[in-house]
Amino acid sequence: MHEYSERTRRPDDHPGHRPLPAGCFRVQRPIRFSHCDPAGIVYFPVYFDMFNGAVEDWFTQGLDIDYATMILQRRLGLPIVHAECDFVIPSRMGDTLTLGVLLERLGRSSLKLRINGEHEGQVRLSGSLTVVTTSLDDFAAVPIPDDIRAAMKRYQAGCEG
Amino acid sequence: MHEYSERTRRPDDHPGHRPLPAGCFRVQRPIRFSHCDPAGIVYFPVYFDMFNGAVEDWFTQGLDIDYATMILQRRLGLPIVHAECDFVIPSRMGDTLTLGVLLERLGRSSLKLRINGEHEGQVRLSGSLTVVTTSLDDFAAVPIPDDIRAAMKRYQAGCEG
Amino acid sequence: MHEYSERTRRPDDHPGHRPLPAGCFRVQRPIRFSHCDPAGIVYFPVYFDMFNGAVEDWFTQGLDIDYATMILQRRLGLPIVHAECDFVIPSRMGDTLTLGVLLERLGRSSLKLRINGEHEGQVRLSGSLTVVTTSLDDFAAVPIPDDIRAAMKRYQAGCEG
Amino acid sequence: MHEYSERTRRPDDHPGHRPLPAGCFRVQRPIRFSHCDPAGIVYFPVYFDMFNGAVEDWFTQGLDIDYATMILQRRLGLPIVHAECDFVIPSRMGDTLTLGVLLERLGRSSLKLRINGEHEGQVRLSGSLTVVTTSLDDFAAVPIPDDIRAAMKRYQAGCEG
Repeated sequence: MHEYSERTRRPDDHPGHRPLPAGCFRVQRPIRFSHCDPAGIVYFPVYFDMFNGAVEDWFTQGLDIDYATMILQRRLGLPIVHAECDFVIPSRMGDTLTLGVLLERLGRSSLKLRINGEHEGQVRLSGSLTVVTTSLDDFAAVPIPDDIRAAMKRYQAGCEG
Repeated sequence: MHEYSERTRRPDDHPGHRPLPAGCFRVQRPIRFSHCDPAGIVYFPVYFDMFNGAVEDWFTQGLDIDYATMILQRRLGLPIVHAECDFVIPSRMGDTLTLGVLLERLGRSSLKLRINGEHEGQVRLSGSLTVVTTSLDDFAAVPIPDDIRAAMKRYQAGCEG
Repeated sequence: MHEYSERTRRPDDHPGHRPLPAGCFRVQRPIRFSHCDPAGIVYFPVYFDMFNGAVEDWFTQGLDIDYATMILQRRLGLPIVHAECDFVIPSRMGDTLTLGVLLERLGRSSLKLRINGEHEGQVRLSGSLTVVTTSLDDFAAVPIPDDIRAAMKRYQAGCEG
Repeated sequence: MHEYSERTRRPDDHPGHRPLPAGCFRVQRPIRFSHCDPAGIVYFPVYFDMFNGAVEDWFTQGLDIDYATMILQRRLGLPIVHAECDFVIPSRMGDTLTLGVLLERLGRSSLKLRINGEHEGQVRLSGSLTVVTTSLDDFAAVPIPDDIRAAMKRYQAGCEG
């Protein structure tokens, strides 16, 4: 499957669009009929929805911090303050996309996650989400709780190791 | 309604987050129950879906180029190759958001649109979409057709005038 | 635009699929790119999402009971316990669908709404939602509050009058 | 988790809402943050979207008829002409829902699928989709192709056996 525009978007224009380290958490997502638009390719906001689901799975499976418990019991909110994505190669119904998560920056009460969509070793899309940890009671920023920070640091070490 | 985090996101950190020029095309969108998540605020991928709808309305109403005809009859595709957004202030059910469209860059076969979400004169979110004009028959990039380019240039002039 | 299958779905098979009374509340919805699937027609769950939005507008504009206030301030929940729809004629990007709301049944703590999607006087889809009024604090059914019931009775009278 | 309304919706009011036969195809779906509304429960149109995904998986994994190939290569369309669902017990983020598929009726160019959502042996929702097989070239109904019909008959036998 070719790129949207070979002239304007060559792989070497995007040095960051390399597959993530092998140690990163990855989930697979089937591309469904419902994800695709009348042009037959995934409608781009669907990718951001997939990113959010990948982050859920990363917490629960990758960090061993149950996402639902964190939101519903601990009342920790994770609003997105910035999201972006380069869409390099379109995907179609029947494809399986592998989403990988890299923790690019770990701040006091925010983190930045890079999320790549890969298919057969090729980066089809590369985005990031910047998340602020907040209290769901007053929506004010709160420091990342110690257990979650520790799990994230372990993840970072394992990802790159 | 306060910002996600006053300390990390002050208005003066985002000099670009000023209301768009008065001449820009704007559409209003009610924030619905279905747009909101369990935290009661708009789920961020919904904004990107709203951006796409605002671009449709901008073509049809702002440029007088019927969007559906452009896609279905002229077979011109508009895949998004880059999308991004700063989410500054959350919105809730019952709010009405005004989305404005600024044509930031007009290339040979691509364009970059800034889209702001405003509420009572305040910028709640500010994003951009980079679009490549393609043929829906082979997905190759094609130059922006002359009539569309002319309409876009008129829009740019009117927006800033 | 022809029906999905002339032999299995003729208008006279659906005697209920007549346009709603002229007095019913109606809203218009543009069919957007994002509503359509790779076959170029509206993806059916989107219609149920549109139904929910039409019900919101019906409360706020048709009954003069502000929907957001009802949910967020009065803490009245409106879970759907049954939804159904006949999809008679598909719609495509660029169409404008008119959604009309008929209050078919008004119970003690539930109501049934018929919602038709019409295009140039023709019924393209006809569905219904059965809603239970609940307390958002404990999710138990509660009687429809008096002011809302009164507004609904006035609506019923006006719709059929 | 209690039902929406114990008085109006008791299990014995819904004799059809028993778990599907053990031989039926089933898929598991995590309930995500993005599926839930400000009341904290799954927004009902999401279930219909999940139904469509379950049908995709049923074709590909349950019938061994690759869904994407059927749509994209064989150009067989599967528009939904009727959809309905009883929502008995709400689901929340962190739950895992099991969706099962029963082929209730196999016609000449249409089929009716019952789809139940089960959680720990309890039926939380029970719906159906009526699908017409059409040509994606002219949207006219076509008989269910022989290989697909044979696979469906085998499925029916195995499901109930």
